[in-house]
Amino acid sequence: MRNEVPAVSETRQWNRLMDLAEIGAIPNNGVNRAALTAGDRAARRLVIGWAAEIGATVSVDEAANLWLRIEGTDPDAAPVLTGSHMDSQPKGGRFDGAYGVIAGLEAITALHDAGIVTRRPIEVVAWTNEEGGRFAPGCTGSMSWAGVHESHTWDEVRDHNGVFYGAALAEQLSAEADIPRRPLGSSPSAYVEAHIEQGPLLEAEGLDIGVVTGIQGSRWFTVTVDGESAHAGTAPLKFRRDAVQDAVRAISALSAAMEDPDDILRFTVGRMSVLPNASNSVADQVTFSIDLRHPDGPTLEARGDSILGILKHAVKDCRVTLKETFHAMPVEFSPMVIDAVEQAAATVGAKAIRMASGAFHDAQFASRVTPSGMIFVPSHRGISHNPAEYTSPAQLAAGTRVLARTLLDLANR
Amino acid sequence: MRNEVPAVSETRQWNRLMDLAEIGAIPNNGVNRAALTAGDRAARRLVIGWAAEIGATVSVDEAANLWLRIEGTDPDAAPVLTGSHMDSQPKGGRFDGAYGVIAGLEAITALHDAGIVTRRPIEVVAWTNEEGGRFAPGCTGSMSWAGVHESHTWDEVRDHNGVFYGAALAEQLSAEADIPRRPLGSSPSAYVEAHIEQGPLLEAEGLDIGVVTGIQGSRWFTVTVDGESAHAGTAPLKFRRDAVQDAVRAISALSAAMEDPDDILRFTVGRMSVLPNASNSVADQVTFSIDLRHPDGPTLEARGDSILGILKHAVKDCRVTLKETFHAMPVEFSPMVIDAVEQAAATVGAKAIRMASGAFHDAQFASRVTPSGMIFVPSHRGISHNPAEYTSPAQLAAGTRVLARTLLDLANR
Repeated sequence: MRNEVPAVSETRQWNRLMDLAEIGAIPNNGVNRAALTAGDRAARRLVIGWAAEIGATVSVDEAANLWLRIEGTDPDAAPVLTGSHMDSQPKGGRFDGAYGVIAGLEAITALHDAGIVTRRPIEVVAWTNEEGGRFAPGCTGSMSWAGVHESHTWDEVRDHNGVFYGAALAEQLSAEADIPRRPLGSSPSAYVEAHIEQGPLLEAEGLDIGVVTGIQGSRWFTVTVDGESAHAGTAPLKFRRDAVQDAVRAISALSAAMEDPDDILRFTVGRMSVLPNASNSVADQVTFSIDLRHPDGPTLEARGDSILGILKHAVKDCRVTLKETFHAMPVEFSPMVIDAVEQAAATVGAKAIRMASGAFHDAQFASRVTPSGMIFVPSHRGISHNPAEYTSPAQLAAGTRVLARTLLDLANR
Repeated sequence: MRNEVPAVSETRQWNRLMDLAEIGAIPNNGVNRAALTAGDRAARRLVIGWAAEIGATVSVDEAANLWLRIEGTDPDAAPVLTGSHMDSQPKGGRFDGAYGVIAGLEAITALHDAGIVTRRPIEVVAWTNEEGGRFAPGCTGSMSWAGVHESHTWDEVRDHNGVFYGAALAEQLSAEADIPRRPLGSSPSAYVEAHIEQGPLLEAEGLDIGVVTGIQGSRWFTVTVDGESAHAGTAPLKFRRDAVQDAVRAISALSAAMEDPDDILRFTVGRMSVLPNASNSVADQVTFSIDLRHPDGPTLEARGDSILGILKHAVKDCRVTLKETFHAMPVEFSPMVIDAVEQAAATVGAKAIRMASGAFHDAQFASRVTPSGMIFVPSHRGISHNPAEYTSPAQLAAGTRVLARTLLDLANR
């Protein structure tokens, strides 16, 4: 097997990530690049330009997933798939998602530069709307591709400005009408996704690589508290049906009920909106999100199923409703891919450890269709979804060397 | 004294209110007509058209307060002033504010139709931004006119979309450049404002008119809770600085501390905003409003001054800051105006009671400049700041008859 590792360019990869990070840049090195926006499209055009330099073919599917492909020697072989996403959180960093796409591109560029052609084709995918920051839930692109849900499932979901997901998706496809369209869904031989860890473990242990064995489960909910608007100066408190007061009671009760002495359960209320949201009007509606995660399936099910009862008990004056918007059970990755990543890390001399992922990823859905796995690189202080997110150029390059070696291995099987 | 009372038209007044309510109409008879918007301007143009029918002169001052004036027989006499505001809450009703302007217009129209010319001029004013629903605080128009604050004090205040008050004010003045400009500030001989009660008392007692003796005090605050954004799936709870969790602790603690067995203190959190407001990101900032009111000055001062200590004690992981955005002590109205309103009610045969106002009004600031008072009409179920706000055509007409008689009395002194 020829050695593609020296062809991975730490500098080229870093510069590309920094170029991408200028699209949607916010203060302190942050990135705000929501899915299906002009910024998203500009980022995709950059990547398409880089892919063209090595003769990769480019296509888009009806969920707006972006595909870059280099051919192998066997035209009938199923491709090996890698990639991640390029949308960010509203106050996100430079690496979450973008790294996996750029690493995939760097890996196939390194193979190209080293003159290596594998047996199988290799495809790099940029999945649509992984973050769910603009349109919840996330992973709509990979869910559509994996057939978990039909691609128009979320057409009526609105962003903060009332724009529909369906309209934004149509706009993106229309703006990319010059790019060849490919059918939604495919049957790769394997999927491997490079990503920042988004946790503190690798850095704390002085390691280069996390060989990801699986992903904890996630359940997302939207809670709606309906009260009655009233004048803040005149309405006696005893007659009020104040949605803010009941939402506060609900969040207090949930937070207490979700306490976990082992600090493994992840309970987060990250989004709230108040109507009419005027300082001198009693609120008549509050909606808030719940993000609940646990690596153990039955525990996650039980905790999630307890929410409605807690809400009904906590809310005093208003009507409360609960809607589950996302439900992903814990995933175990393919032993074949896990072993391939571990072997690749050993081959390139990277210090690796097996670990589970705290965040969910598109690999969660890819794993329903094909043997899947992930490669983690360290996150400084474990920070992500934050402008302070950081992984060094050398750490990113180490991850990409492991990815390139893994792809080479899997694509020659 | 000639009798202007029969000239007050219940039908004309009601139709005008309904015409106004179509501008910014929302479901269930509601109105969303924020200050300094196209809707606000359209409402003003309607009123200007009606004023022209009786030969009233129209002008605008630099705070965008709109003035309609009919002359008296004595060109040197200080005018009598009436009016209210035409902006609404985001989910407001048809009568809060609009009634006072239309009642003033109806009163001078009735005098005109009855062929009555008073000694003093009578002016009807529509104050800018009383509600503070778009730009907090409210009453910026009347505060500017009364010299409480300079009219550019709030230029940097932003609405939900980031638009500056200063820019919106300039846009309004530019759109009304065809209307003669008058200097800010004046010296009327008295001010009397008609308004819906926004409380349940008059309806419950079967009364027509509230002779308003004063207004309870208000203090508005903005609380900012600064934490740190983090990934909802990976960040251990013990390391989080979650702004939503601390805001919930703060609101819980404040609500408990502000409990009043007599239900006289009004404590409201009506506005909250969360950043980045994504369901899978721990919030790094929450801001929320506090609206605090009490009829007793020292009690209001003490309760308001206790807030910072309560916040500091309640907030666990984040940094909390408190800013006071509005401070209005309780007001007692002029005995001269109170007596004139009471006498007018007796003259027209309306059943009246003396009462204090729970809501604040522009009269609060007018009273710093001139002897002031208010006339309340019943609010069905005490509801306001809500589409269900309702006062019957006959109740509104009764209030306007009292207003017309009061103006006639004061303008002939």
